[in-house]
Amino acid sequence: MKIEQLGEIGLIERITKKYKADAESIAVGVGKDDCAVIDIDKARSSYKYLVVTTDTLQESTHLPEGISPSQIGWSAIAVNLSDIAAMGARPYAFTIAMGIPAHTDTAFVDAIVEGIEECASSYNTAVVGGDITRSKELILTGTCFGFTDKPVMRAGAKVGDLVCVTGSVGNAALGLKIIKEGLTVPKKVDKTAKRALFQPVPRIQEGISLADSGLVTSMLDISDGLALSLAELAKSSKVGFEIYEDKVPVLSDEIKTPLRGVNLRNLAFFYGGDYELLFTVDANVLESELERLRKEVGISVIGKVMPSEEGIYFKKGDKKERIKIKGYQHF
Amino acid sequence: MKIEQLGEIGLIERITKKYKADAESIAVGVGKDDCAVIDIDKARSSYKYLVVTTDTLQESTHLPEGISPSQIGWSAIAVNLSDIAAMGARPYAFTIAMGIPAHTDTAFVDAIVEGIEECASSYNTAVVGGDITRSKELILTGTCFGFTDKPVMRAGAKVGDLVCVTGSVGNAALGLKIIKEGLTVPKKVDKTAKRALFQPVPRIQEGISLADSGLVTSMLDISDGLALSLAELAKSSKVGFEIYEDKVPVLSDEIKTPLRGVNLRNLAFFYGGDYELLFTVDANVLESELERLRKEVGISVIGKVMPSEEGIYFKKGDKKERIKIKGYQHF
Repeated sequence: MKIEQLGEIGLIERITKKYKADAESIAVGVGKDDCAVIDIDKARSSYKYLVVTTDTLQESTHLPEGISPSQIGWSAIAVNLSDIAAMGARPYAFTIAMGIPAHTDTAFVDAIVEGIEECASSYNTAVVGGDITRSKELILTGTCFGFTDKPVMRAGAKVGDLVCVTGSVGNAALGLKIIKEGLTVPKKVDKTAKRALFQPVPRIQEGISLADSGLVTSMLDISDGLALSLAELAKSSKVGFEIYEDKVPVLSDEIKTPLRGVNLRNLAFFYGGDYELLFTVDANVLESELERLRKEVGISVIGKVMPSEEGIYFKKGDKKERIKIKGYQHF
Repeated sequence: MKIEQLGEIGLIERITKKYKADAESIAVGVGKDDCAVIDIDKARSSYKYLVVTTDTLQESTHLPEGISPSQIGWSAIAVNLSDIAAMGARPYAFTIAMGIPAHTDTAFVDAIVEGIEECASSYNTAVVGGDITRSKELILTGTCFGFTDKPVMRAGAKVGDLVCVTGSVGNAALGLKIIKEGLTVPKKVDKTAKRALFQPVPRIQEGISLADSGLVTSMLDISDGLALSLAELAKSSKVGFEIYEDKVPVLSDEIKTPLRGVNLRNLAFFYGGDYELLFTVDANVLESELERLRKEVGISVIGKVMPSEEGIYFKKGDKKERIKIKGYQHF
């Protein structure tokens, strides 16, 4: 059945049934009234700050070939959660505005909504409100809010701080390359890369642990690529960066097998699509504390914060190689 | 200049400069970090509930011919404020996600953003976050949050309560008719109707006054038309409605001039586009209290709440005429 046959009211009823906004703090949840109504003190525990972010996924610019409808829904939530993670905050709830072409199958919309609910509930959050419109292309705008006592800003990196990143990078861009160029890679790499592309994992717990450690001086997510993210951090913190390219964590190192014809670090820097966290750590960190973060959070030290006038560069032996500031941009 | 020449970073800088999020409670405003950061206690004063709503405006389905870019921006904010008004809440802040075709003129985007800021600041709210993507058609998704102690729900109308509406209705649909059919109407009517269509006024102060009066038992806005709104209210409150058609406030009564070839009440019931509030008032209201609401808020009593099994109907003398439940729907 097409959604135009179902009608707007039928569609809204069908969708809202799939969302389980059952927290005690949600006085009025999705689809019930003009607004969602949230008991602030029950929702926030004792946190001081509300954090809010909004992010859009849309057919013509964001969705890679082969992504499933439930992965589309998952991704629409995950990209917002990644921004919450980048503040070191706890996500609480979402609104989701969906623009859907009239000829879309109901089953396709069902699967999107199931993906949304799956991702939201995986991170203990709930969809509390939404909107549905008829649009020319599929477009999903999520707005997420959460709570924290100590938001980790982009401004805060100081000269001498260590530059770090969570997880491994370049995976999403590798996934895209595998699909677009029919690249053959080991099975495990194929799986990891495609998962990074189709169903990104927001680093919520990592963000919270890093913020709670009290060691992190600045943080952001690297969805537009490491180069642009370093440039953003440099601008906000008024610093430069020295980066050790061979320390940048990539999958091919992990599996100890180079990938023919692919430079994963190049993909990580200039193509983006990864939802890892880039952050700086106070220079006075103890080696034991750093080791704990390596083990518990999974971080790699990839460089050092330099004075602003030094710019952003790769240190290779005695040489400095300027990092070109390019990555994914909409316009 | 086209926005694709300006580039994404240039565009974001240009836009965020136009937003004045300067409240003391906003620790991090628009364009500064991964999330906006809001000091909850400074923001909410002592209100118990956070209310949240999201609403999308989009070129192919929502924008009437002749609307200016600043009116598009204004409207994207106003439709969300109307949902906040319908809870009787105070709006606090917005996020705005904009999908913009790449060939759009920078001046056009500037004017949209100016309209957004104009409407937001008119109601003491601020844009604290946003997103910009390249899309096939212009699409704006606003998410608004606000605060209240006593949200007025859709559920709550009791048999015997009075049915009321703010302002006058049918104006936006009349505006559309004037433009589409080249209808000639008195100058004042033309102006009012086009303003209702192009630059709707959200009933924020009215919603707050009604909620504060303690007399209102249920409320919603009537953007999809009076008929669908009555049906929504009936469903949420499990009641029926008796409506006196000639009591429904329309512009032609106000100016004491009938409009040839136009049935404003018919437009109000079945075409929508008005951002007035539909609400019910406790049957035990004193006439003096009602008179105060008439004067101070500008309300009209248009009917009575009936038992659910009576359905929704016009009372015309001794006759009952079933109200057909139709109005604007996306699918």
